[in-house]
Order: sequence, then C-alpha cells, then structure tokens
Amino acid sequence: MSGKYVIGVDYGTESGRAVLVEIAGGREVASAVWSYGDGVIDDRLPGSGRLLEPDWALQNPLDYIEVLKRTIPAVLSQSGVSPDNVIGVGTDFTACTMLPVKADGTPLCTLPEYAADPHAWVKLWKHHAAQPEADAVNALAAQRREPWLSRYGGRISSEWFLPKAWQILNEAPDIYAAADRLIEAADWIVWQLTGQERRNSCSAGYKALWHKRDGYPAHDFLRALDPRLEFLVEEKLCGDVYPLGVRAGGLTPAMAALTGLREGTAVCVGNVDAHVAVPACTVTGPGKLVMIMGTSLCHMVMGHDERMAEGICGVVEDGIVPGYFGYEAGQSAVGDIFAWFTENCAPYRGQDVHARLEEAASRLKPGQSGLLALDWWNGNRSVLVNADLTGMILGCTLSTRPEEIYRALIEATAFGTNKIIKSFTENGINIDEIFVCGGLPQKNRMLMQIFADVTGREMRIAASAQTPALGSAMHAAVAAGPEKGGYAGIAEAAAGMASLKAERFVPDKGNREIYGKLFAEYERLHDYFGRGENDVMKRLKEIRLGVTAD
Amino acid sequence: MSGKYVIGVDYGTESGRAVLVEIAGGREVASAVWSYGDGVIDDRLPGSGRLLEPDWALQNPLDYIEVLKRTIPAVLSQSGVSPDNVIGVGTDFTACTMLPVKADGTPLCTLPEYAADPHAWVKLWKHHAAQPEADAVNALAAQRREPWLSRYGGRISSEWFLPKAWQILNEAPDIYAAADRLIEAADWIVWQLTGQERRNSCSAGYKALWHKRDGYPAHDFLRALDPRLEFLVEEKLCGDVYPLGVRAGGLTPAMAALTGLREGTAVCVGNVDAHVAVPACTVTGPGKLVMIMGTSLCHMVMGHDERMAEGICGVVEDGIVPGYFGYEAGQSAVGDIFAWFTENCAPYRGQDVHARLEEAASRLKPGQSGLLALDWWNGNRSVLVNADLTGMILGCTLSTRPEEIYRALIEATAFGTNKIIKSFTENGINIDEIFVCGGLPQKNRMLMQIFADVTGREMRIAASAQTPALGSAMHAAVAAGPEKGGYAGIAEAAAGMASLKAERFVPDKGNREIYGKLFAEYERLHDYFGRGENDVMKRLKEIRLGVTAD
Repeated sequence: MSGKYVIGVDYGTESGRAVLVEIAGGREVASAVWSYGDGVIDDRLPGSGRLLEPDWALQNPLDYIEVLKRTIPAVLSQSGVSPDNVIGVGTDFTACTMLPVKADGTPLCTLPEYAADPHAWVKLWKHHAAQPEADAVNALAAQRREPWLSRYGGRISSEWFLPKAWQILNEAPDIYAAADRLIEAADWIVWQLTGQERRNSCSAGYKALWHKRDGYPAHDFLRALDPRLEFLVEEKLCGDVYPLGVRAGGLTPAMAALTGLREGTAVCVGNVDAHVAVPACTVTGPGKLVMIMGTSLCHMVMGHDERMAEGICGVVEDGIVPGYFGYEAGQSAVGDIFAWFTENCAPYRGQDVHARLEEAASRLKPGQSGLLALDWWNGNRSVLVNADLTGMILGCTLSTRPEEIYRALIEATAFGTNKIIKSFTENGINIDEIFVCGGLPQKNRMLMQIFADVTGREMRIAASAQTPALGSAMHAAVAAGPEKGGYAGIAEAAAGMASLKAERFVPDKGNREIYGKLFAEYERLHDYFGRGENDVMKRLKEIRLGVTAD
Repeated sequence: MSGKYVIGVDYGTESGRAVLVEIAGGREVASAVWSYGDGVIDDRLPGSGRLLEPDWALQNPLDYIEVLKRTIPAVLSQSGVSPDNVIGVGTDFTACTMLPVKADGTPLCTLPEYAADPHAWVKLWKHHAAQPEADAVNALAAQRREPWLSRYGGRISSEWFLPKAWQILNEAPDIYAAADRLIEAADWIVWQLTGQERRNSCSAGYKALWHKRDGYPAHDFLRALDPRLEFLVEEKLCGDVYPLGVRAGGLTPAMAALTGLREGTAVCVGNVDAHVAVPACTVTGPGKLVMIMGTSLCHMVMGHDERMAEGICGVVEDGIVPGYFGYEAGQSAVGDIFAWFTENCAPYRGQDVHARLEEAASRLKPGQSGLLALDWWNGNRSVLVNADLTGMILGCTLSTRPEEIYRALIEATAFGTNKIIKSFTENGINIDEIFVCGGLPQKNRMLMQIFADVTGREMRIAASAQTPALGSAMHAAVAAGPEKGGYAGIAEAAAGMASLKAERFVPDKGNREIYGKLFAEYERLHDYFGRGENDVMKRLKEIRLGVTAD
C-alpha cells in the first residue's frame, strides 16, 4: 500500500480504540480496541486494596500507555501499512479526566510513596466526590458575578477541573504539594507521546474555565475561594494553551519503539471525545448542530461570536474548530430512558424487546397515543441545569399500550432537544441542519424521523461508526500538514476524510404541525415543573431522602 | 332444618346470583349463579341479528326470569330448606337498567312486532349511546338552574333514566308510543314476582331524578327539553315510589310454581346492587363510609340532612336506609388500573403477576419510591366529574422499579378516595370509619393498609363475599316482618345478619404523616390539571381525535 495514513486513538471510559485511516478519502482501514486492565476504579485501589468512598471514580494512567502499546501495532499489522506512510497520530479523551504528576510527567500514583493515596490516581470524568467544592465554586462565583459563570450556563459541574483540584488540596494536601502539575489526561498522553507539555484549548475551555482572551479565573477569585488556590494556575498548570489541530511535537524514540511508528511522527495536541467527533460528522462551521446520541445526548454547534444562551454547558472560542465559538449543551439521559423502559416496563422478554417495541411504535401517528412525557429520568442538564427534576408521563388511559409509552418517551427526548435548539436560535446561534453520530441513530430509524419532525430540521447520520477516533485521525492529518501529505486545516480534512450516510431524514409537514402542538404542551409543563412554579419533584426527592435515611 | 330463611337475588351485569340465608345469624347456607343466555348484547340483536351501533349495551329480560327459575330451586335443593321456612325474597339490580313494557308488564322486545327494534330491549346500565341526550339535559338544567342538578354533582350521566328514555323517543317514536311504561329492571322483576308495579326509592332517586318532597323534574323543564316529554312521568312512569325494605306483595302462583317457593311469600321492593350492600357491611346509619371496591370504586355514606358536596354522584333521602340521606360518590377506575399495569407494564408474565408485584411493593415504605400518580386512567368521576382527564405519573428516574410504580398507582387511588372523603367532611357529612366489600380487598392486604394510612381511618372488611345478595336477603327479612320471623327494620336485620371480618386495618402514625405530605402534592396537581389551570389532558385528547379521524 502506497497512500498516506494517520492514526486516531479514542480514549473512552472502559477502553481505548485506535483506528488507522487513509488520508485520501478517509477509509477506515483497521481498528483495534484495548480494555483498561484496571477499568473504572470505584471500589478498591489497585495494590493497596484501599476502599473508596461512594461517588469516587479513578483510573490507572498506565492503562492509557498500554492502549498505545496494544492497539497501534495491531492496526499496523492488520492493515499491512508501513510506518513510513503513517504521517500523524491524534488522540481524544474523556474529560475532565485529570491527574497529579511530577515535573517530568510521572504520575504520582506510579510512585511507591503515593500509590496508596486515592488522590494520587487519575480522577475519571464521572468522579462525583467533589460536589461540595463545586457547590462552593458556584456560590462564590454567583455572589461575585464572575464574568465567566454565564459562559457555563450559570453553574459548573462537580466533574470539572477546579472542584477536582481543590478536592485534592482539601483532602490530601501532601499530594497537592507533591504534584508539580495537575493535568488533563488528554494532555498527559500527548506529553507522553512527544515529551512536550501542550494543553489543548478544548479541555481547558470546557472543563477548566479557560478563556482565549481572559485566561483562567482571576487570582482574587481563587484567593477568595481558598488562599492556597491563589496561584493554582502558575503553580500547577502550564500557562500556554494550544488550538486544536496543532502539532504538539514528534513521537519520542521510546514511544516509537512502543508503537512501531517512526520517531518524529507528528502528534497532534489533545482533544475531547465529543468535540473531536464534530468534524468527523463533516461539520466545521456554524449553523450545523452535531448530536452525539447514546445513553445521553451531547449537542454541539458553532457560532461566529460569543453569546449567552440558557442552559448551555459551555461556550469556548476555538473549542471545537479554530476560528469559531463552540457551544455545548446536553440531555443527561436519552438511550438510558429507552433501556430503562424495556428493562422495567415492557411486558415481554426475549431477544429484542427494542425491535419489537419500535416495530409497533413506528405504526403510530404523532399525537395518536394521547401521551406526553417529560424526559427527566436523570434530571435536566440543558436548559434547566437541575438534577432534582424527575420524569413524568401524562395522558394514560386503560387502553394505553406499551409501544405508545415507548414512543412518547422518544418524543419527549426530541422535545428536550427542540427546547435546546430553541434556546440557541433565540439567542442568535443559528441551526439549519442536524448531523448525528453515536450508537443510537444507527439502530433506530423511527427515532431519527421523530427528531426530524419535532425539530423541523433535516437530519443526516455520520458514515463512520467511530467518529471520535476518526476525528482524532483527521486532526493528526492537520498536525502533519500538507507538506507531509496531510491537510492545511480541519475543514480541508473534513472535506477529504469525513462523510455521511446517504439517507436523509426530512421533516414531514403534517407530523411537524402536530408535534408543534405537542411541543407547546411540553414547554408549558417544562416551565411549570422546571422553573419553580411547582417544585413537587424536588419535594418528592426530599421526602424520599427522609424516608430512606430512617 | 327448622329456622327461618330468606333469599336474596343479585342481578349483575353478566349473571344473577341467589343466596339462601338463615335469618338468625345471617349464615349463607346455599348460593347459585346463572349466567344470562344472551349476556350483554352489544353486537347483534338476538333473533333478527340486527347490528348494533357502538356504545350500545342491551339485555334480554327473559334472562332475568331464567335466573329465578334456575337459582332459587337450586338453593332450596342444595340446602334442604323447606319452602315453608322461606319467609321472603329480595332482589337488587344494576341501575339504571331500564326497559319499555306494556300495561301488563310484558316487555316490548318479547312481542314479535317490536323484537327487531333495538329500542324495544332492555338498555343496560352501561349503554352509553344516549350521550347527546345527557348533554342536552345537563345544558338546559344548568341554564335554568334546576334545583335538582346540584344534588347530582352538577351533571347527570348518559347512563341515567331520562337520557335513555329520551333516546327511545328520538330514535324510535313508535316504540316510545307503544310503551305503556318505561321501568327500571329492578322494579320490573318485582312486578313479575308479585304482579304489583312498585317503584323503589333508590333507583328512582339516584337514576331518575326523583326527590322525596319535590318528586320528578317539573313539567316546564321537561317541556322545554322536548314538548313530547312534558307528561313523561304521568304517561310512562307510575307516580308512587316506595321506600326500601317495604313489602311489594306476595309471590304469584305462577312464580311460586317457577321457583318452588310458596305462593304469597313476601317480596321486597327492588334495590340497586351497590346500595343494598351497605347494610350487609353492618352499616345502617351516618358516619360510616362503605366502599365497594372492584374494577371501580363506589363510595356510600349517610347523613342526617341534605347537603351539597362537590362531585357527589347523588344525594337521595331514604336512598340507602330509610330515615337518612344517602350520599354516593365514585372513582371510575381502581382495580382496572392495577390490571392495566400488570397487563401492559409489568416486565414479567406468568401465574400471578399481582402477587409478585404486591410482595415486592409491600416491602417499600411510603414516600420511598419518590413517585406520585393521578389515578385518572378512566377519567375522574368524583369530585371533578370529568371524563376527559387522564392518568399521570411523576418522579420517574433510571432506578424506578415496576413494584414502585404499582404501589404508586395504589396510593393514587387511595388519594382519590381521600379527596372524596375530604369533600364530604368539609361539607358536614361526617366519616369516622370505613367498611369495604367487593373483590379487591379480599385479595390485597397492602391496598387495605395503604387506604387506612392515607385516609387516617380504621378499615374493616365485610365478612360476606356476596354482600349485594346478602343485602337483598336482609331486605327480604324486613319485608316479611317480625310477625313472620323477620325483622322490624334494616338496622335490626343488620344487627342480626351482617358481620365483619375480625381483622382491623389501623392507620400507622408514621405512614400517615408521610402520606399527608404526599396527599398535599396530589391535591395540588389534582387542582392544577383538574380545575382548568392547565387543560393539557383535554387538549391531548382533542389532538388524538383529530389524528385518528384522518
């Protein structure tokens, strides 16, 4: 084989996946997956066996190295592609997934003196034990009207960088002191590959409150939060933040030996798994919403300027594609709700309950069931940012059938997305078309048509089933650059390497009209239960807590 | 056997049941059931095969005679009791179940010239084709502020006597003209047994708008409704209405031959199946709520005076026990909701889904699920009188379990009952204790405890599993009178013949407190969705109608 190739490595929650992609045309020639040996560490610490508290979720950074060692030689060998023709490597990661390291990048958890302290390990994105810290950050930022707060929908998550860093300081000051750096795993793996510490603008912007012009939160805010945090940025972070697609450096001799690639092969700066998928859906500019649909739903869109919209998870300049403001929003449960229904409420068992329900539900017309649901089975992320909200279904009669409930749940998630689209567009962030990727749309054509009918937008599905890895490979081609056979920018890479499935899901005019009426009812209930008029959902949770605490 | 006995005959929807009861102690010595040959006629007319329209439900009056012929000899033969020792016969019927007859009581449908017209047959209680007539009655009565309207919760049902009679006049004027009488089946069967036309105060009061002092609706109202109806009462009804427990007459020779009983045996005036069960639950005076719990729930209580309470189905002087005002209210689906859930939403099949759900649900504490439901799967009869309302459930999360939903549905029906109790008591109709009968409480101890905890009232269950038939037998003993070995009144009969199961369901103080909080949330949603603040349920039904009409 004589063409040029790139490798994308996608670090997920349970495993890492490498894909080898041909630069001309974007064909995915080979892929390999390696499951982390220590997986998600949420029970006992490896080695010491130390018991973890609830809400903790850690990882072992050596598992990330093992992914490189296992998957890159595998895709080379599967494909028969010569390392000489692999011009770049790109990576993406879950975020915020962060760890404390020494000045040379050595993770503290790999050093015997720290290995028995949970705070020395990688805090995975879903580590939720820093909620008190997040609450304090939110309270102080709101009180001081910090300018950055509105860029994150008025509230930051316990999953983010600052609460996690502060939790280390509060609970393990010795670990905090021993750490020369606190770093996103996305940037740490690039450091390992290249020997260069290069922080990426996506992780920094969406998870660490970094802003292209304003930088990180100001000293006086951090001091007011905790005097020991005043110089957090200077002491534990590295000042420079690099745009996506930039070459971080060349592959080190050690990493060349580990992976079988050539020393000096271009390595791209890191990226976040959701955001890197956007150009892999062919999207590199404004007006096009990308939805990553799986157990939850992540919405990403770009705009020409910085605007505030209710319930966005973040707006970051250069956060998705350099030159644009990247907006992110989300629904905290989508596929999870359908799975809940099939497991708990479908009156039959067997091979494919989903397929049986979809078959029956797809024969229903919009509005025919008389049902309406609020899709809050796991709270509401956008636009209400309220984890205390719960799911509701209304319109049940003695003749209500399971497939009617199933369809109403799908419709509710589409209404939730439409509410987010409405918030974006009402704030001047334009959305003309929708592009989807992830596991759900591949399997569920009815869901696609319902989303098209509810949102009134044409929907397309990404051709690739592994858009994050493909996106990382595309960024690698940009990092390598045209002189090496790559691309000048991500737009060119998308034109050359990303594609869509042929099928278009076009809104049906009649369905759209009925869904318009149903969405008006959804909005009214959304506001009634979600904006404080009747906080019954929160009060039921309080009653529940009181009962279960007895 | 030497004691004295009475026979009660309970005419249900599908069959008639006779019970032979010993007067001293109320032991149910023998019982027999006969299913109507023509059952519920809702498809084609017997004989002519004429197709019926939707919402029609008819019966064949000869099936009622067949019940007497089959069941009374059977209980005599089973028990070995001599007809000489059977001192009375009592009957009760579904209502309003009515038919057109000649002056001698001959049903028009038994005459060849009328048999092919559906309007010549018995209109069963659940014949719902007179809705346009009911709507017109309600509209005119409301406009004219008819004094009787508030005694029926502001709205009469299409099931009642006046809409059914008017439908005959509108659609089959020749049948209406040929009918010398329009009569409740409850009174027709007594006429057949005794040769005497004796209308009972319960059917007349609850179903035909009769009032002890004011009589039937006035001429000018009926004339305004339809000039042809002005003299409905004089032309088609019989002026006199008799209190419950009165002797209608003695068994005719023909009926003595048919049943094997003695000619002249006392026969009681008719009664309604729900109301006759009240004294069979030992209740013969105010302060005690009787609930007949099955697919739906009927609430009955007595008071010393006539008061108006929201959502009552009717208040009738002497309507349950002579000397008191009888109040009726209802929930249009209770057992039906639980059956719906097990059939449509329980994620397992097999012998006893109810038992499996109850076992798991009974281990939950009140408030533990975080769920709250509105029990409107078949609309709301009391207190909102609105068939357009639909069921709702709220508080769902990804960890919600089927048994939690099941329990929430039971709790919702208990909240619905509590709302009715609150309406009664706030209007001066006192309720101290609750007595239940019907199919549901026998099987479901958790349900009983939940109702006790929610209502804060001690609950007892009737000892008899066939309270309507027992109640009819008790009334027969009253009709026979003390001189024949019977009782002087229904209170004496209840003291002598009715009893309760030993078990008492006593409200738990802790549970009561939590249910108080949950009921406050239920009431708020009840009013929000039920009193016009958000008519989303009605609008969803309209959207549904528009879609299915296409």
